Amino acid sequence: MNTAAPTLDLAAYCRDTAKRAKEASAELATLDAEIKNRWLNESADALVDSVDQIITANALDLAAAPGYGLTDAAVDRLRLDADRIGAIATALREISMLADPVGEVLDGFTRPGGLQILKKRVPLGVVFFIYESRPNVTADAAAICVKSGNAVILRGGKEAIHSSRAIVDLLTATAENCGLPAAAVQLVSTTDRAAVGEFLSLHESIDVAIPRGGEGLIRRVTAEATMPVIKHFDGNCHVYVDQSADVQMAAKIVHNAKCQRMGVCNACESLLIHESIAAAALPVIAKRLQAESVEIRADQAAAALIPDSVPATEADWGTEYLGPIISVAVVRSVDEAIRHINRYGSHHTDAIVTRDLAAAEAFTAGVDSSAVMVNASTRFNDGGVFGLGAEIGISTDKFHARGPCGLRELTTYKYIVKGDGQIRT
Amino acid sequence: MNTAAPTLDLAAYCRDTAKRAKEASAELATLDAEIKNRWLNESADALVDSVDQIITANALDLAAAPGYGLTDAAVDRLRLDADRIGAIATALREISMLADPVGEVLDGFTRPGGLQILKKRVPLGVVFFIYESRPNVTADAAAICVKSGNAVILRGGKEAIHSSRAIVDLLTATAENCGLPAAAVQLVSTTDRAAVGEFLSLHESIDVAIPRGGEGLIRRVTAEATMPVIKHFDGNCHVYVDQSADVQMAAKIVHNAKCQRMGVCNACESLLIHESIAAAALPVIAKRLQAESVEIRADQAAAALIPDSVPATEADWGTEYLGPIISVAVVRSVDEAIRHINRYGSHHTDAIVTRDLAAAEAFTAGVDSSAVMVNASTRFNDGGVFGLGAEIGISTDKFHARGPCGLRELTTYKYIVKGDGQIRT
Repeated sequence: MNTAAPTLDLAAYCRDTAKRAKEASAELATLDAEIKNRWLNESADALVDSVDQIITANALDLAAAPGYGLTDAAVDRLRLDADRIGAIATALREISMLADPVGEVLDGFTRPGGLQILKKRVPLGVVFFIYESRPNVTADAAAICVKSGNAVILRGGKEAIHSSRAIVDLLTATAENCGLPAAAVQLVSTTDRAAVGEFLSLHESIDVAIPRGGEGLIRRVTAEATMPVIKHFDGNCHVYVDQSADVQMAAKIVHNAKCQRMGVCNACESLLIHESIAAAALPVIAKRLQAESVEIRADQAAAALIPDSVPATEADWGTEYLGPIISVAVVRSVDEAIRHINRYGSHHTDAIVTRDLAAAEAFTAGVDSSAVMVNASTRFNDGGVFGLGAEIGISTDKFHARGPCGLRELTTYKYIVKGDGQIRT
Repeated sequence: MNTAAPTLDLAAYCRDTAKRAKEASAELATLDAEIKNRWLNESADALVDSVDQIITANALDLAAAPGYGLTDAAVDRLRLDADRIGAIATALREISMLADPVGEVLDGFTRPGGLQILKKRVPLGVVFFIYESRPNVTADAAAICVKSGNAVILRGGKEAIHSSRAIVDLLTATAENCGLPAAAVQLVSTTDRAAVGEFLSLHESIDVAIPRGGEGLIRRVTAEATMPVIKHFDGNCHVYVDQSADVQMAAKIVHNAKCQRMGVCNACESLLIHESIAAAALPVIAKRLQAESVEIRADQAAAALIPDSVPATEADWGTEYLGPIISVAVVRSVDEAIRHINRYGSHHTDAIVTRDLAAAEAFTAGVDSSAVMVNASTRFNDGGVFGLGAEIGISTDKFHARGPCGLRELTTYKYIVKGDGQIRT
């Protein structure tokens, strides 16, 4: 691990890395899908063939983990074994089977005068991906970026630096064997935090920055970036139980959305319920949540129907708990539910449980979120479910990409215009 | 014209304006196309019916113009008469005839387990549009934003403030008649420059900022904006004449791209020519340009073939002249042309003149620009030509929107997921 010591060298190192990525991106942009897919499959083989080497590198990270103060759960996520390396390889093979987004024709027509116009999907160019410690993300992100025709600069967490280095060395060696530019995938070789700032200043070489991690990281990247950022902020997701809902379905969906996995962005954090069904449904729903030790923070009307609830404060409506707490409010109409969600929610994922067509239509039209569910759990907002095949993150932005970001979300387009001597008059 | 004096009031005024726009955008997002189209047509009628009133307001701007130091050309662009007001009205009627982008289904499928997924086009929300003095832009921008379901805050140049106010008052009165929210279109009522900075800080209410004007304005907005910006920087456009080109076609296209309108972003600023056709073609092309008093700044090889050329410097390759100057370089291959364009160009519009299929394919694949032309003038990069119907600008970004920005480029999407009680396991 070489660490660039003086600031001047760091700036030069970052500029050089970005420049090589930009040059590689020009080659990658027109590379045949077959070559990219061969690289993915041969990389998968190389990972499986090099299990011992990767585990040895991973052991260095595991040995250093206590020094970084990692929790047991974080150490477990960091740990690689043959099965986990096999899963990383499988993910690469799956990405090789996805359709190449590059070259897809998005629109095309012939204009009066005979100009033939095609709007064609092309890569964005260079992706700067900043992420935290899980080493499987290193391979995944590299695969998604290169399959979509982009060069990628990976800035992984220092906690996984040896594991990531071992994986990227294999990907890079395979790249050269397969005819990809060596700089298609580059891992930032210094753990100096200042390197992130340097890269974020290089908007002439880097087309998009994607941070994946805690809110602090995302805020820092957003504040410092001079290029566009695909952000992944919090998910304060709601389930609204309409007056016409099937009570058992509502209880099942709320339970799944809250409890199936509590620490994720598409978990339910708030339950809204129509006043005319609250008395019948809230006790049933609350019982299932309380059986999983979920604390219920209720407004006055809901509290009257739920034993052992805690009073909700204004702050609760805007809070993403990521754990065993849910806020509950009674509303008078689907419109009130929509207004509440648009005001307090994070525009991520929100669901309605209803048997009423008009309520479903009003809710899906009115709620301003990346995914709006009808009679389904919020947990389904996911690149795999939405047919993207693999995702590099879930965007909480509206601009460019919204919701799960897969291969297509890492592309832009160009217009190609063919004539036979046309001039403008 | 009321000007908010103390800073505190200005900040409050901007926040309040943005908040009203955000509220209006929620209504606009689900408004029937028929209502938006009725507003466009009734606004067109109102403009035509109010010609005298608009001309009276315009006279105040014309009277103030010398005080702002406007050139004769700028004063001419500012002037409104019955014909020009009629043209503004016609543009609104044309926008009413375009398909509504809102609700367009971009993708849709049913997943194993029966979840039905739709990816549906929705408005971005609130557009903050900052532009310079032409009053027709006021009506155009309002129409494009509202037709695509967005609320718009218009910040026009002070030079046209009375004309813009008269136009917006008509649009707003018609909005209320037609059932649109009154805050669908708001004109910033203060000419205080600090108001722009205030609005650019309001990313919670404003979804995108679009500056249209000189480079200084765009740089300021980009630097200060806390929300995404659709930028329109310069167009350093090239025509590359390949070795297989038809010389007469090449001369006609270069002449049109350079001379048809010199001050626009899709005019040609640089000519590249293959060495094997330079001796035959350059004198013909140069003669047509020099007949229009275009100064030719040539590299050594080109200079030898063009009487009365001026030596080009390194700076010439990166310069957008917007006037009667062109740079000319001789290259040895289509690949050298592509590398030159990607290095010195502005990724706006570039053309090849060729009879060779492989050269055309290499050029369109390799040149990283919003529009790449084959045997056609660069002047065709235009929303009208590309079937967008109306444009709010031409993006020089790759992110979200590239090239001409019409109705669709002012939208995003959401996923709508319908189930019958599905939960994730």
